[in-house]
Amino acid sequence: MMLGHRTWFFENKPRIIATGTICGPFEGNGKIPNDFDTIHADLWLGQDSYEKAQKVMFEEACAKAIEKAGLTKEKIEFLLAGDLINQITPTSFASRTLSTPYIGLFGACSTSMEGLALASLIVDSDYGKNVLAGTASHNTATEKQFRYPTEYGGQKPPTAQWTVTAAGAAVVSKQGDGPVVTSATLGRVIDMGMTDPFNMGGAMAPAAVDTISAHLKDRNIDASYYDYIFTGDLGSIGREIALDLFKKHSIPMDKEKFQDCGLLIYKDDQPVLAGGSGCGCSAGVTYGHLLNRMKQGEIKRMLVVATGALLSPLSFQQNETIPCIAHAVAIEAGGATG
Amino acid sequence: MMLGHRTWFFENKPRIIATGTICGPFEGNGKIPNDFDTIHADLWLGQDSYEKAQKVMFEEACAKAIEKAGLTKEKIEFLLAGDLINQITPTSFASRTLSTPYIGLFGACSTSMEGLALASLIVDSDYGKNVLAGTASHNTATEKQFRYPTEYGGQKPPTAQWTVTAAGAAVVSKQGDGPVVTSATLGRVIDMGMTDPFNMGGAMAPAAVDTISAHLKDRNIDASYYDYIFTGDLGSIGREIALDLFKKHSIPMDKEKFQDCGLLIYKDDQPVLAGGSGCGCSAGVTYGHLLNRMKQGEIKRMLVVATGALLSPLSFQQNETIPCIAHAVAIEAGGATG
Repeated sequence: MMLGHRTWFFENKPRIIATGTICGPFEGNGKIPNDFDTIHADLWLGQDSYEKAQKVMFEEACAKAIEKAGLTKEKIEFLLAGDLINQITPTSFASRTLSTPYIGLFGACSTSMEGLALASLIVDSDYGKNVLAGTASHNTATEKQFRYPTEYGGQKPPTAQWTVTAAGAAVVSKQGDGPVVTSATLGRVIDMGMTDPFNMGGAMAPAAVDTISAHLKDRNIDASYYDYIFTGDLGSIGREIALDLFKKHSIPMDKEKFQDCGLLIYKDDQPVLAGGSGCGCSAGVTYGHLLNRMKQGEIKRMLVVATGALLSPLSFQQNETIPCIAHAVAIEAGGATG
Repeated sequence: MMLGHRTWFFENKPRIIATGTICGPFEGNGKIPNDFDTIHADLWLGQDSYEKAQKVMFEEACAKAIEKAGLTKEKIEFLLAGDLINQITPTSFASRTLSTPYIGLFGACSTSMEGLALASLIVDSDYGKNVLAGTASHNTATEKQFRYPTEYGGQKPPTAQWTVTAAGAAVVSKQGDGPVVTSATLGRVIDMGMTDPFNMGGAMAPAAVDTISAHLKDRNIDASYYDYIFTGDLGSIGREIALDLFKKHSIPMDKEKFQDCGLLIYKDDQPVLAGGSGCGCSAGVTYGHLLNRMKQGEIKRMLVVATGALLSPLSFQQNETIPCIAHAVAIEAGGATG
């Protein structure tokens, strides 16, 4: 219950008591396969459409998180979730399965931290005891909708990113053990006039820098407070631009400590151009890999800054520029409930 | 700061201190033209696409609400909003104009009350002082996306509804005068297996009944507590089905006091089949017409239950049924801040 400009300070220690992470075969061959609860060998997950495969993947992530929390779905009061597919149908159909009160979100690839910020707010202010937040993306469902049918075999420039097939969900609660969500900074729409949908990282970098700057200012800290700042999916191009922008605005930022979820998930020899992207990228990497590193004591404090490009194929066709946003959530290692 | 199962009880009296409502020419010829702040004579609003027209309409609703609240946009801490267009681009572009921290929502036509519930929670728990919630829909932008190009002149069955061209926004604050948001009940996804996208009201009725039942149970009241219960946009068919369901479940419901926003906006001789629908329907009617009736003393307590059909053209083509949801917000007349 404290507001610092754009930042919510959570004083009652909402915790991430359990998470579920699921991924596809390509991600299973990546750099961090052991950080996923389930790796699917088949991109279809036994469904007859990629959208349904995404739905099943998200259902599995939710079920896994609830199971690991030692809860049943009836104990989950609210689900905050969304995805990139038109009218977020995979998430809504998964919510039908879960049968939990449901707050649908749209933040493109920023959805993971948008949901975690709101879930933490609900728990912190006693409006919910166990709240679930999560999101998913599926490579071919997204490609089909936003770009070309994959059968077309269209080439992409090196600035393009690869949509991650993954889902991640987290149970936020005041009771139980787990890392504490200490604060969250909500993003504004930042649009620097970029129009190239094959360079999302470049478009999103200014939004990430805007939110990180606001977060540091609101908390009255500098970036060294965190062991790491992880952006959602700027990829290699967007990350470089963000580092340039920090320099330009005289915001000290240790290059080694400024990492990107889209650069953590795949091996160097996987052909993902500038890196991973998609709603499931920051959700899967944060709720699996990063929280595991926190559990192992390697990370004590981190800021996860999920970035989203809020365009649509139609807005691109109508010659609009790409509006971008970034939501930041601070996660800090914490002991048992006091 | 109180949770009753699915219902948030707001103890610190978050108030709707000002609203803005904008509509198109067809709505301006409807039953409640005087309840809109601005009526546009041109469906294009001077833009070169209907999506951009919707964006401008929503910007105007936000600007009007902020102006009437005696604030500037810099004083608005968060915007909670969404719409029905793919990737909610009209809302995101409007948010770019506003430059306020932005929480993007997707709840189809339930977005109005999803946003108002969350805005009230943020204000009630001191995470925001002045929070803006709103949504918009545009008839031809929606028709084009969900059904057929209007030029095709396709016929519709009498169960179909007419997407309202309107926008509504509300400033929620603890400081100032205005009706109090006393509680909110979040909806679950309810899907009774209906597949006809030309009968949304019928599909959504069970979701409305589910949420209203939960709300009455959580508050331990019966429907007579409210002067009126207004559903978002069930239309005439959905309203009849909801009344049947109340009877079936032995929930007393006075037919005269159970009204629908989709049946309040147009004149009887306007060719809207089963009534109005769209995100802007419940937003425009609630923030204009209903709050005006509250101001005039005719309504003291009302429950607004915005209903949403969470389908997409693709999910329909993939033979999925229509998942529906309803979010309810209780608004009660209140004096000046104590």
